[in-house]
Amino acid sequence: MTEEFPMFATRQSVEQVEEGTALAPKFDADGLIPVVTTAARDGVVLMLGYMNREALAKTIETGEAHYFSRSRQVLWHKGATSGLVQKVVELRIDDDQDAVWLRVDVAGDASCHVGYRSCFYRSVPVGGSEAPIVLTFEEKAKSFDPVEVYGDAPNPTKL
Amino acid sequence: MTEEFPMFATRQSVEQVEEGTALAPKFDADGLIPVVTTAARDGVVLMLGYMNREALAKTIETGEAHYFSRSRQVLWHKGATSGLVQKVVELRIDDDQDAVWLRVDVAGDASCHVGYRSCFYRSVPVGGSEAPIVLTFEEKAKSFDPVEVYGDAPNPTKL
Repeated sequence: MTEEFPMFATRQSVEQVEEGTALAPKFDADGLIPVVTTAARDGVVLMLGYMNREALAKTIETGEAHYFSRSRQVLWHKGATSGLVQKVVELRIDDDQDAVWLRVDVAGDASCHVGYRSCFYRSVPVGGSEAPIVLTFEEKAKSFDPVEVYGDAPNPTKL
Repeated sequence: MTEEFPMFATRQSVEQVEEGTALAPKFDADGLIPVVTTAARDGVVLMLGYMNREALAKTIETGEAHYFSRSRQVLWHKGATSGLVQKVVELRIDDDQDAVWLRVDVAGDASCHVGYRSCFYRSVPVGGSEAPIVLTFEEKAKSFDPVEVYGDAPNPTKL
């Protein structure tokens, strides 16, 4: 048990972590754990985000997805600005407890700051070695207008 | 274009990265990009892994999932030991190109070194704040015997 977050157990053994029933998540050197978020209704991967201890605790307590924004370095209640809140249908932890899987229902059915439903809106051709590679847009239209939703908030994408 | 891996474009602008058709992946300070791997047949998240440039290039070229093993620090052709090869049905890249989604068919239908089909075999109860949390096993039985498949190879889970 950790003092600030009593819901998280201390990691004591490989057997406890892999085969046990205690939640003993591993956060990386930056205090973060990666999170895969999929749509409960059809399994589409909507985004890959990160949580710190506070974000994971708040997600478990409230049933709404909270992340840690690496670009803004703040706790991020997804949908607080856009209205696109993610309701957690199921939360899973992986074998060594260093990754989280959220199955969610999304108000407004979109999760990507560019305006698409999923952040993974482009596919990469597989099975050849020609360069350069040309990506294919798998979503044909945006679900919302990011300028309308986010105004002039800074774009989180970093080069 | 990068010299060693001509299939990867140089990241030049946010617009190019988010709205373009060039593959310009971002690798982190350790040279890695996170990868979500889901089962093509039903969308179950099988694992969250990492690729370095070589692993991503080999996955694209061969159509079989290659990762970078952080515990062993080597290129890892998934299934080379266990036979549980992952055939890539679709490979997607996210908005800022710092995450990959693989949809795969798995020989043997299991992907977790502990013996389960998915690494995410336990769920965390959501919507309460009681401590300690008790995880639920969502897979009732292992798909294979890890001792039989991996012998005495070191367990990759680290505390």
